[in-house]
Amino acid sequence: MAAWEENVRKVVPYTPGEQPENPDIIKLNTNENPYPPAPLAAQILKDINSEILRKYPDPGARDLVRALAGRYGLPEEQIFVGVGSDDVLAMSFLTFFQGTKPILFPDITYSFYEVWAKLFGIPYQCQPLDEQFRIRSADYQKDCGGIVIPNPNAPTGLAKDLAEIEQIIACNPGVIVIIDEAYIDFGGVSALSLVPRYDNLLVVQTFSKSRSLAGMRIGYAFGNHKLIKYLNDAKYSFNSYTMNTVSIAMGAASLKDEAYFRETIGKVIATREWTKRELSKLGFVFPDAKGNFIFASHPRCPAKKLFEALKEQGIYVRYFDKPRIDQYLRITIGTDQQMQALMRFLKQYLGENV
Amino acid sequence: MAAWEENVRKVVPYTPGEQPENPDIIKLNTNENPYPPAPLAAQILKDINSEILRKYPDPGARDLVRALAGRYGLPEEQIFVGVGSDDVLAMSFLTFFQGTKPILFPDITYSFYEVWAKLFGIPYQCQPLDEQFRIRSADYQKDCGGIVIPNPNAPTGLAKDLAEIEQIIACNPGVIVIIDEAYIDFGGVSALSLVPRYDNLLVVQTFSKSRSLAGMRIGYAFGNHKLIKYLNDAKYSFNSYTMNTVSIAMGAASLKDEAYFRETIGKVIATREWTKRELSKLGFVFPDAKGNFIFASHPRCPAKKLFEALKEQGIYVRYFDKPRIDQYLRITIGTDQQMQALMRFLKQYLGENV
Repeated sequence: MAAWEENVRKVVPYTPGEQPENPDIIKLNTNENPYPPAPLAAQILKDINSEILRKYPDPGARDLVRALAGRYGLPEEQIFVGVGSDDVLAMSFLTFFQGTKPILFPDITYSFYEVWAKLFGIPYQCQPLDEQFRIRSADYQKDCGGIVIPNPNAPTGLAKDLAEIEQIIACNPGVIVIIDEAYIDFGGVSALSLVPRYDNLLVVQTFSKSRSLAGMRIGYAFGNHKLIKYLNDAKYSFNSYTMNTVSIAMGAASLKDEAYFRETIGKVIATREWTKRELSKLGFVFPDAKGNFIFASHPRCPAKKLFEALKEQGIYVRYFDKPRIDQYLRITIGTDQQMQALMRFLKQYLGENV
Repeated sequence: MAAWEENVRKVVPYTPGEQPENPDIIKLNTNENPYPPAPLAAQILKDINSEILRKYPDPGARDLVRALAGRYGLPEEQIFVGVGSDDVLAMSFLTFFQGTKPILFPDITYSFYEVWAKLFGIPYQCQPLDEQFRIRSADYQKDCGGIVIPNPNAPTGLAKDLAEIEQIIACNPGVIVIIDEAYIDFGGVSALSLVPRYDNLLVVQTFSKSRSLAGMRIGYAFGNHKLIKYLNDAKYSFNSYTMNTVSIAMGAASLKDEAYFRETIGKVIATREWTKRELSKLGFVFPDAKGNFIFASHPRCPAKKLFEALKEQGIYVRYFDKPRIDQYLRITIGTDQQMQALMRFLKQYLGENV
């Protein structure tokens, strides 16, 4: 080991889902939206004059913040933006969880929470989901350094109703409660309406799922102005310009296309409900899916085997080789055509192998 | 104060130069390149199919890394990329400066170094420049936790020659030495050639200055593969996808246009040398400028007064109200036309006021 390695922060990073380059693959492994970004966003990409890119972007990303303020009915000073909700969440962990008491989040959830806690040396305690994969509210009503609740949760897909979310926030006025709503537009009820009443609440959302802009990396958060100010201070202490000019413009344009937004979400939900019915017919079981994915298990077919068989067939889903969930596959909702292809293969495979 | 504020990381952020929206302003305040990005980069922006943006970018930004590897003659595993060199430097501070001994950097330099040290709780010790604003090599030959040397330095513009840089790296095998080369293409000699010989060296560069892509946020670093692996582990523990699809594509395309790169740099250097001569004629003094800016002082005109007079005239330069440099203005090199307008105003103003 070189001497300089002594001073190095050593971490085990989060592993994202594969991004295969082959366009023929049916890619149901990273919860992307199967539909393209809004036409207004596509148009602005064509219209951008590349000459302006010699200049730095607006460090406040005001066009985007303004558009979010208009769309969600909050003042601009209550909105934070970042390079995907991962950046927003990472900054939030860095900013709000400086205490010595452990922060709380579910044991089965977005595995990045644990990675951020370790990266920043934040003490944490995972709270086990119940046998039906539900987050138990009682687990989040104790002395702690902060709380992170994904709603709907991933990879389970289960959502909590607003009253339960509010109870957790109300019980913990002394710490920041982050509600990670990456998948909220596909069926959950957002905690946005609680922001004016709770100064300890941060609601985090993203353009990567419901707005089909994963490739542009745009996330945002709502909170009281003091909390957003702290978050911006940390952001400006890290990187003055996180959002680039094209992301700012495309994000703002995308928010103006409400009809397209509703239409694509409606299509994803309809396909999800169809897929649920078809999976049930084949004997799969799954928690009620409120996101753009289904977390499914087959009682008579090992998940890992099925994962590999699907991959060989050019159908990528996500498999987590972890206790309690190693018999499940997380299947992103694609187009009707993609899901029909998936069902055809599953039907045939289970017929031959189970 | 709300109870949750106890757990908040409180920081004083870096203040970037103003980004005025009025296009008539002669903007010489943030060291942007006055020329547009390379035509190949402009073309790829027009050619991108927005439909692919529904998908996450390649987390490894391989197209960009490959292009950098080709252009700079290093293997891909010795290259790290990020959201501007600020992101690359922030990640490097987080990763490499975990020791208890202070890291060293100049007292007059990019003020973000101090901000990052404070953000991450890294002990640091500023080393004073000499009376001619030179970095004294002897100051960096002592027991420490790491070293950051900007070359050329900003806002002074002075460059160190390669032998001096090598001496500092060779003297400190037990810690990481970061050479921040944001402005290297305008006249300094890069430490890139030392990378194969020193495993403790990280060379950081950017597309924001010499490649006219400040708006797309692209920075990169060269180092030995082990060092880059640590840096990537930290990056993947912070945000899986920092570089978006458009930035990756434009960055890679820009590297293919070597002739345009040389041409614009040549023009900036020629304008800088002309500006130096003109400033001298008016009585200004300045350290020898090797970047795309000049750090100038007039013996008989207070810098702050001049800064404000210029601003009123629609000419933005950068003024730092700090000890030792409060009689200087940092003037970015613009087009010939812009610099002529600046000189006309200075001539008139000094004639009337000094």
